[in-house]
Amino acid sequence: MQITMVLYRRMTALDIVGPYEVLSRLPGAEITFAAAAPGPIPTDTGLLNLPATADFAEISRTDLVVVPGGPDVRAQTQDTRLHEWLREIDRTTTWTTSVCTGSLILAAAGLLERRRATTHWLVKDRLGDFGAEPAPGRVVIDGKYGTAAGVSAGIDLALTLAARIAGERIAQTIQLAIEYDPRPPFDAGSPDTAPEEVTDFLRSNRSLVVES
Amino acid sequence: MQITMVLYRRMTALDIVGPYEVLSRLPGAEITFAAAAPGPIPTDTGLLNLPATADFAEISRTDLVVVPGGPDVRAQTQDTRLHEWLREIDRTTTWTTSVCTGSLILAAAGLLERRRATTHWLVKDRLGDFGAEPAPGRVVIDGKYGTAAGVSAGIDLALTLAARIAGERIAQTIQLAIEYDPRPPFDAGSPDTAPEEVTDFLRSNRSLVVES
Repeated sequence: MQITMVLYRRMTALDIVGPYEVLSRLPGAEITFAAAAPGPIPTDTGLLNLPATADFAEISRTDLVVVPGGPDVRAQTQDTRLHEWLREIDRTTTWTTSVCTGSLILAAAGLLERRRATTHWLVKDRLGDFGAEPAPGRVVIDGKYGTAAGVSAGIDLALTLAARIAGERIAQTIQLAIEYDPRPPFDAGSPDTAPEEVTDFLRSNRSLVVES
Repeated sequence: MQITMVLYRRMTALDIVGPYEVLSRLPGAEITFAAAAPGPIPTDTGLLNLPATADFAEISRTDLVVVPGGPDVRAQTQDTRLHEWLREIDRTTTWTTSVCTGSLILAAAGLLERRRATTHWLVKDRLGDFGAEPAPGRVVIDGKYGTAAGVSAGIDLALTLAARIAGERIAQTIQLAIEYDPRPPFDAGSPDTAPEEVTDFLRSNRSLVVES
């Protein structure tokens, strides 16, 4: 199975490394990290580069594509060459997926038209601007389109995909191999459960997390 | 705050990228990715390199060190130069920490003597070989030593550290920023909850996950 992980400048590293850690363990998985040009891609903090091993032009088909998010995806929601490539590759995929604000890129490419989708909670309303239908849930599957909520939700998306692709037993085996039995020290991972002052702080300072 | 992320050949990428995604958001965090030599470090799948920006010799003090695990840490549990550096750096840290089998490396360096610690569930008994005391829990804190269970547990460790370092509100803000409200599709992330056949499969094929 050919899996393509999309990389671009100022993406969030965990958006890709979470799903990669799950999907690379699927039997027969062949993973390519692709970007507009091969070489080191600086992520959002400027502290960590992820290396692209291929450029988009080299990849004309893939079974599964994962598009990550980042704190400012404006460049990617306006990148018509990226959109063209995504539309072309989408014709060949079994699964077209995104993590966090990656869904805004898929939607801007026209791939989520009238599709139920999710994204980072701070920009969920923006999905509608691109014709997608914001839906509840940490992982939203609509046909072959799978979208995950913010950053860490890529792990849940990838396990969901692993089960669809290879069966529940394989997905559970991967989950146990990476000991994914999460115990966050606080119940603060969702605006529904986080202390109000924490949610309000991020709403008032959304540029810390997503494009303003 | 100086944070040093240790890299080595065949480490597991998520062991470091999970904590990095949390700790890099701490106010004043300065993160260095350090290895025996700077440059790209191949991780366990052979599919993804993480770039080391410094070599160990350049780092003589740090506030927090994170040691990742990998499927075969035998080389690292026998690497006396790495152990020497870890012991030296440990004299300067506020927190000395590990994810997954990284605790076996800390323990082999003599840093977890009579300390309560955890590691990947498949090798928990090995902690005792190095004088540490295997303890229950996904994150175990004993004094300034923090150890996490397998792979994905590094995120829980990092949020726990974030709260101790910068207070609960900051930790909760980071948790909400990365929308860490985990919803694994299966309750299979621990040997206590996974289907018996899944646990038995990994016990019989532990070399798929950790050193045999």
